[in-house]
Amino acid sequence: MDNIYMKKAIELAKKGIGYVNPNPLVGAVIVKDNRIIGEGYHKIYGDYHAEINALTSATENVRGSTMYVNLEPCSHYGKTPPCVNTIIKSGIKKVVIGMKDPNPLVSGKGINVLKNNEIEVTTGIMEEECKKLNEIFLKYITTKTPFCILKSAMTLDGKIATYTGDSKWITNSISRNYVHELRHKVSGIMVGIETILKDNPFLNTRLNNKQGTDPVRIVIDTKGRIPLDSNVLNIKSSAKTIIATTTLIPKDKLKLLENIGCEVIIAPLKNNRVDLNYLMKALGDKKIDSVLLEGGGELNFSALEENIVDKVNMFIAPKIIGGSSSKTPVGGFGVNLIKDSFNLYNTKVHTFESDVMIEGYLKKEG
Amino acid sequence: MDNIYMKKAIELAKKGIGYVNPNPLVGAVIVKDNRIIGEGYHKIYGDYHAEINALTSATENVRGSTMYVNLEPCSHYGKTPPCVNTIIKSGIKKVVIGMKDPNPLVSGKGINVLKNNEIEVTTGIMEEECKKLNEIFLKYITTKTPFCILKSAMTLDGKIATYTGDSKWITNSISRNYVHELRHKVSGIMVGIETILKDNPFLNTRLNNKQGTDPVRIVIDTKGRIPLDSNVLNIKSSAKTIIATTTLIPKDKLKLLENIGCEVIIAPLKNNRVDLNYLMKALGDKKIDSVLLEGGGELNFSALEENIVDKVNMFIAPKIIGGSSSKTPVGGFGVNLIKDSFNLYNTKVHTFESDVMIEGYLKKEG
Repeated sequence: MDNIYMKKAIELAKKGIGYVNPNPLVGAVIVKDNRIIGEGYHKIYGDYHAEINALTSATENVRGSTMYVNLEPCSHYGKTPPCVNTIIKSGIKKVVIGMKDPNPLVSGKGINVLKNNEIEVTTGIMEEECKKLNEIFLKYITTKTPFCILKSAMTLDGKIATYTGDSKWITNSISRNYVHELRHKVSGIMVGIETILKDNPFLNTRLNNKQGTDPVRIVIDTKGRIPLDSNVLNIKSSAKTIIATTTLIPKDKLKLLENIGCEVIIAPLKNNRVDLNYLMKALGDKKIDSVLLEGGGELNFSALEENIVDKVNMFIAPKIIGGSSSKTPVGGFGVNLIKDSFNLYNTKVHTFESDVMIEGYLKKEG
Repeated sequence: MDNIYMKKAIELAKKGIGYVNPNPLVGAVIVKDNRIIGEGYHKIYGDYHAEINALTSATENVRGSTMYVNLEPCSHYGKTPPCVNTIIKSGIKKVVIGMKDPNPLVSGKGINVLKNNEIEVTTGIMEEECKKLNEIFLKYITTKTPFCILKSAMTLDGKIATYTGDSKWITNSISRNYVHELRHKVSGIMVGIETILKDNPFLNTRLNNKQGTDPVRIVIDTKGRIPLDSNVLNIKSSAKTIIATTTLIPKDKLKLLENIGCEVIIAPLKNNRVDLNYLMKALGDKKIDSVLLEGGGELNFSALEENIVDKVNMFIAPKIIGGSSSKTPVGGFGVNLIKDSFNLYNTKVHTFESDVMIEGYLKKEG
């Protein structure tokens, strides 16, 4: 039974995707005599937490009931008062928790407060699923740098475009809609200047079935070459555009960009390019908890080399285009030997009609 | 119930994989009062057909029983007498057939003979599965050219080797064993001379759990450059090596190759290379019903352009190696636009632990 209600809490939590960053996704269910009498989730950043919304929604007195919540309730004052206080006051008898708060500063504190107030607590229910649900939060809260998803799409023979540069469309419409779900989910989307110059993308979220949240657009532009009429600089969007550049940018260009409302991050140079690790820290400071990397092959290889990638989403379409000079998802210099590969772990295969998407995680050192 | 016994017949038929080419894979089950009282399969080319083996194996009188067989029983004299005659004599009451004989010259004839002898016949039971089981035979018997499977293995970023040329190993041992199952299954294995010069492979079948059948080794070598000490020319194997060359081969080299037991096919030139369609016909004439194409990128693209490929098996390993100059599975010139892609149909995703294999079919014109 615990799993059924926890699953429900996770489902509720997912409704917050795209709206709560950099907060965690949280859902809560209140159960009495095997009936759900209340449910809620964290809807939008800064607003009430899931536990409070569940208590508010309750259709009868919650005294003596059990609360299921995928993440340990908070015990500290943030944008809202501590959830544990409200839970204790409500007369809830038992709290079933998916996972402890990953924030080392508060982990376990909420549980202790509950226990000290004679509330029964169970933890670790569907822990793996709960951790996966909040993989972005887990990375961000423990490192203060964004969770980075490298996303690319290739043909069955490993190409991202024909030798003439044609790339529309490699994947089908279902895959492409999923990519917009990803854009909706993350706080930032990152490309290199070459992609801007070549494709002039909007980098916004375009979903079939709902209004999505645009991610902050981040353009890596070492020398400040971005044209002022680029779509990313002129799009109507609630999200801003950040130009990540270096001291190689001309002073007047920097001024111009700032004047048109762009945020500019001046990063140190590393191998004559923007230092990606510095940039990740700077983005984390701006509360960007996640970045979807839709780079070309050069940027993708740099990102892997610089160890900033956490997850890969590779779409593969069942078509072959050939071409010994056609571009591939990851270029750069490349590793010397197969044994030096960037290996993916916990891989999972998704299918979108005949397209295949392989997801996997990069094991980080340290 | 029909499906259960047909499934059993298919399972039996599969035991013949690698041993019966260019004959079809056939299994037969004899059922009386819902009990299997006999079963058999076509074991080796030239030997008894499945129906006869099933009748021979019967543990009681087959009179009045039903035979399940995945392919229409033959009505003509080949290496053995017609199966329908023996079935009629046996007193079998009913024959359930997976698919008709695809050979247009005999299709339906066996069924008619059975019916004319008052045997009840049902056809089309698990027809799709039966057709897939004998996809090699279907192509070969109707076109007299081999069924060609393009097999390659790449990293998740579309590379078949690092920029330095290292490729051992991209896939895991389970995937590699599956490739040897493929080699066991087909009559021929085909590579280009560049693969011989670079990797010096044996191209034989090395299976973990059984003695496999070596396919005929076919090397496409337009100018006759193969070194006489190549492994494919010196390996101990029951299968021969065929050099597919053109008039560009030096006369003495041709003589030498023949003297060491090599078969040489002189094909016309097409775009300064071996004419692959001519070669396929020549191989078909030599009773090679199937070819596993383990080409490099150049040969693979030519094979696709020349429309000789029927099926693709692409292995994808969850590792990334990068490299803008690293080789990919299909090279050559490439198509101009995405809309000109070689599209795969009826795709299926297999997993071998964390490796993924995507299989699909090329729709043929005409």
